[in-house]
Formats: sequence, C-alpha cells, structure tokens
Amino acid sequence: MLPTIDWEDGEVVMVDQRKLPAKEVYIRCKTATAVAKAIKTMVIRGAPAIGVAASMGVALEVRRSTATGTAQLAVEFYRACDLLAATRPTAVNLFWALERMKRTFAESMKAGQSVDELKTTIDAEATRVHDEDVASCRALGRYGAEVVPTGGRVLTHCNAGALATGGYGTALGVVRAADEAGKKVAVFADETRPFLQGARLTAWELLRDGIDTTVITDGMSGALMRSGRVDVVVVGADRIAANGDVANKIGTYTVAVLAKEHGVPFYVAAPVSTVDPSTPDGSAIPIEERDTREITHLGAAQLAPDGAGVWNPAFDVTPAKFVADIITEYGICRPPFTESLRAACEQAAAAG
Amino acid sequence: MLPTIDWEDGEVVMVDQRKLPAKEVYIRCKTATAVAKAIKTMVIRGAPAIGVAASMGVALEVRRSTATGTAQLAVEFYRACDLLAATRPTAVNLFWALERMKRTFAESMKAGQSVDELKTTIDAEATRVHDEDVASCRALGRYGAEVVPTGGRVLTHCNAGALATGGYGTALGVVRAADEAGKKVAVFADETRPFLQGARLTAWELLRDGIDTTVITDGMSGALMRSGRVDVVVVGADRIAANGDVANKIGTYTVAVLAKEHGVPFYVAAPVSTVDPSTPDGSAIPIEERDTREITHLGAAQLAPDGAGVWNPAFDVTPAKFVADIITEYGICRPPFTESLRAACEQAAAAG
Repeated sequence: MLPTIDWEDGEVVMVDQRKLPAKEVYIRCKTATAVAKAIKTMVIRGAPAIGVAASMGVALEVRRSTATGTAQLAVEFYRACDLLAATRPTAVNLFWALERMKRTFAESMKAGQSVDELKTTIDAEATRVHDEDVASCRALGRYGAEVVPTGGRVLTHCNAGALATGGYGTALGVVRAADEAGKKVAVFADETRPFLQGARLTAWELLRDGIDTTVITDGMSGALMRSGRVDVVVVGADRIAANGDVANKIGTYTVAVLAKEHGVPFYVAAPVSTVDPSTPDGSAIPIEERDTREITHLGAAQLAPDGAGVWNPAFDVTPAKFVADIITEYGICRPPFTESLRAACEQAAAAG
Repeated sequence: MLPTIDWEDGEVVMVDQRKLPAKEVYIRCKTATAVAKAIKTMVIRGAPAIGVAASMGVALEVRRSTATGTAQLAVEFYRACDLLAATRPTAVNLFWALERMKRTFAESMKAGQSVDELKTTIDAEATRVHDEDVASCRALGRYGAEVVPTGGRVLTHCNAGALATGGYGTALGVVRAADEAGKKVAVFADETRPFLQGARLTAWELLRDGIDTTVITDGMSGALMRSGRVDVVVVGADRIAANGDVANKIGTYTVAVLAKEHGVPFYVAAPVSTVDPSTPDGSAIPIEERDTREITHLGAAQLAPDGAGVWNPAFDVTPAKFVADIITEYGICRPPFTESLRAACEQAAAAG
C-alpha cells in the first residue's frame, strides 16, 4: 500500500500522519465527512495530498450514494464538494481539485450520463488526480534535480514529500530525483514546529529511502547556514500567487530571509495546480490560524502555561524576491514569475 | 522563596525548570556534586543563574566540610570548583563566578583565616554573588527601559528572566523595568526549541507579573516581524566576546538576521560578568552540543524516527554587526563594542 492515501475495499485509506513516526496507523474513511475531518485534523496534510484526498472524498460519496436519479446524485455531489472545500483555506490544490471534479461532473451530466456512469466517471477522475499528482512530482523532481549539486546539502522546511502528495513528493521529489541521479545528497530537515512535519515525516520517509537526513530545530537554520553547511534550500508550497509570492508552512519565510543573508539559493517545488492565477500577490492569500493547543501542548505535555497568549498561523508568505526559481512539472519557472508562471499554467491547461 | 535558587536549612534549593510550567517542583542540593548535576541537566540554566548556582555550590561544599585544617579545606574547595567548571562550556558567568570564589578563598587563606572563618567568608561571598546579580539586573533593566517605546512590543528568545538569573532577569529585567515605568509593554516569546525555555519559562514568569505575553514557535518570528508587530528585540547572552560578538541560546542568530531584514533594533542585555575580554571574537567561543534526545523526544513522545541524524548545538553566535546596543548594569554599550565593552569592564573592576 502507498503510505499516503489509497483505495481499499471501496474505502479511502490513509496513514495517520499525526501518529508518525512512533506508530504507523491507517485510518479508513467511509464518507466524505470522514475525509473532510481527516483533512481538518491533519491526519493527511500537504497541499497536493489534500487535493488528492478531496477528490477521493468526493468520489467516495458518489460511489456510496443510493440516489436513484442524477438530480439527487448532483445534490449529494455538490454537498460533498462544499464540505471538503471548507476544510483548509490556504492550500489552493484543494480548490483546484474540487473545481476539476465539478467540471467533470457537470460535463458528464450534460452528456446525459446515468447514475452508474457518473459513478464510474467520478471514480476515474479521482484516480486521475491521484496518478497525475505522482507523475507531476516525478517530472518536477527531474527538472529540480538540476539545481542540486553533486554531494549537495539541501535544507528543507516542513514535509513536501511523498506524504504531502500522492507519492514521491515535491521538494523531496527534487531530493529523490537528485539521489536517483547518483548525486549523493544529504538533507537537513527543519523539525517545523508546531506540528513537527519535518522531524516526524520528512525524516521518516527519507530514512526509508536511505537518504542521509539530519533533523534540526527551526531556530538552528541560521547557525547552520552561517556555518556553510547548506548548498540549497528547497521547499514546497501551499499556494503560489500570480506574481510568485509563495504561501507555505509557517517558518518558510524565516528560512528564505536566512537563505538570502547567506547567499544560499531558495527554491520552491510545486505542481502547477499550486499556482493560483486569480490571487494577484501574497497579501491576497488567506492564512489559516489553527488551535492554540497545537503550540501549548504536545500530547500530554504542557509546554506553555495556562493563560499565555498564542499566535498560531499555519502558513506564511515568502515574497517572490526571495525565490530563486519555482520548479514545476512543466519546467523551471524563473523570474519574472508573472510571465513564467503564466506560461506554465498555459502549458498545463493545454496538456489537461 | 525566590523561585530560581536560594538557601534553605543549609541546603541549596532551586525550582526544577525542566518541570515548569506544569509543575512547580523544588530540588534540594546537599553537595556540590548535586549542584553540578542540576546545572548539567538544566534543572537550573541561564548564564547568570549558572554563575550564582556555581558559587552557591562551592559554598555548600565548604559549609558541610569536616576538614580540620585549612589545607584539607582548600583541597575540597578546589575540587568543588573543578567539578562545577566542568558542567557547561559556553556560559562565561560560570567561570567568572568560580574565579571570584577562588580569589576570595586564596586571599582569605593568605590572610590566615581559620577553617570556621573561611566557611563564613565563602558563604558570604556566594551570597554577594547572588545579591549583586539581582542588583545588576535591576540596574541594567533601568538602562534598558529607555530603548523600549511606550506600548512597545518586545520579541525575546529563550528565557533571560528571573529564572535565568538570581532574580528579575536581564532581557526580561528590561521588560520589567519598562513595565514598572508604566510603558505597558507586550512580549512575544519564541518558544525556543528544543528546551522550550520561552514557552515554559518566559511565559510563566511574565504572566505571574501580569505582563501581556504571547508565545510563538521559533519559525514564526519572521512572519511576525514582517507583519510589523515587533518594535524591539531584546535577548540575553551566555558569553560576549571582546569585539561584541554574542553567544546566546540557539536560534538567537536567526532572530538577529530577521531583525536586520525588518529594521527592528536587536538589543542584548547582560551583566558585565557575561563579557569575556579574553575571548577576542565569536569564533573563539566554545559551543556546547547537547544530547540528541532533546530534539528527538519530548517526554514520552517520539518526535523524530530512530536513525535520523540530529544536530543539537545549545548556542549560536550573533556577530556584533547585528547588535544595536549591549545593555549592562554600567550603562548601554554602543558600537564600536571593543571600546565600550572594555570601558564597562573597567568600571566593573573599579567598582568590585
């Protein structure tokens, strides 16, 4: 089984990423509601993976529907879409995947498909979203491998790996492709508080692939870069604005500023579905604020006293001027990003 | 009882800072060995507090000695000094306090003091180290309050508070003095992984004083500064080189780079005992590396997989060019620091 997300016996199964690396527990979702809850509570996270999960959640609802007519099926389908759209506000792949499912549904309805035909169509479309995500990661990985020198030491933040995608990963797809090309890369993984995706997930999946991985706390990235031990930074993205501003896991902007100070190139790796042409710049990206308990507690341990104020934005925005290149499955987008991202989106539209 | 460290029934008592904020547990030390262990395992931490604890540990050993002659007492005294000097390599206040105890001991021996007289002398000297530390914090707090604007929002890293000193604090001494001056300050506390001194200790002690405190994870400081919500950064120091390079808790350099990028002044608050004129610059400061388990685990929770590499330096060095001013109990040292720090050290020597 792929560790991130897959079908099994007509249900959507995903590894519970909150439990890794201590336990490998799989969650079985029987309804779109269950998938929505899994996304909201971060059983599954990472922009591309959320997009895949959303399309599978919708397909699950359609698959299990007892509707006898297409009108009733449509009601259930759109309700599932709304439910899934309300889970996380920042990751644009979520909305992109749902729009794609809606377009397919609407076109198939218009073409006069029956309830059974619609079920098959929507199922196949969700599978395509999943498969294309993996293929995108492999393609962007191949482009991105170019920017990693042989023996290169890559700093990454959060988990933009197999677990954040349908498989293979975006930032870690670049690492994997460089490794497969024989470049003998080593990775420094920011632990990425508060959810610790770097320590828990990035280290876990890279070690399974035998890639040299060192965990550091988020505050250490400055001292590490100053010591000359980082050649490139590669991170993923949750939404890329039309001008190249990048929303990614909180702490990414901090890494970008440090990279600039130390002359280390800062790369973003993401499929074109992460680019949102309708968001002109980073200031228009909604930033999710999550429960304060993610900061004040870790399991049973209380980290901050009762009564302390807490600020817990899940993401931050890195202005385009800090970004060296944006690596996509249609090639490397270079500044000025307004032009290069538009071209990549046009290529994707033509291909899709 | 003062929460940091104090005498009680002839024993050295300190709050176990590893248990805060969930539990307020006090550890009783009956020997210098016990005090050394407490420093090593971070029951007590913070450069000035370590200096105070070391002098009290030495005094404790002398106090409980059954030596009948001064020669035997001297052997025990110097053995205790060596034991305590071996606890932590970076904080210079530790070595400063032990040198002071040794000087007092040597002079008193030379003056022909008896075993009983030596016991009294060493006891009094340890108390003076403690009292002077609190007085230094209050004095530097008063100078430092000037740099905090009314309604100012102060970002701090780690805990340079009452718990890191004999009481009152260095960076938090500045905050307290500004608060006492009616400036209505608010504090953002980096949680400061891996040991979480910001979340656990800074928030705990500031809330007790009714000062508005918001905890953030270390990666958030960039996004916070970019949002315009930080007026000044004030941190403590574990060692200040002759040229003004500052060793402080890991992550401090990251904050300094971010402060520079955002035009936020970055202040260091420390007593003159933190200045080490014999260390020419930051490259000569020994940096302690601590157990990897501090990063891979938190209590019973496993944060990183078995087999992951870990880098766990306890401190980093911020070059003097990032530091706006260094606030001491003898006033504010301004660049060029080589001159201003030398002048402060001369004032301290003349006073002491």
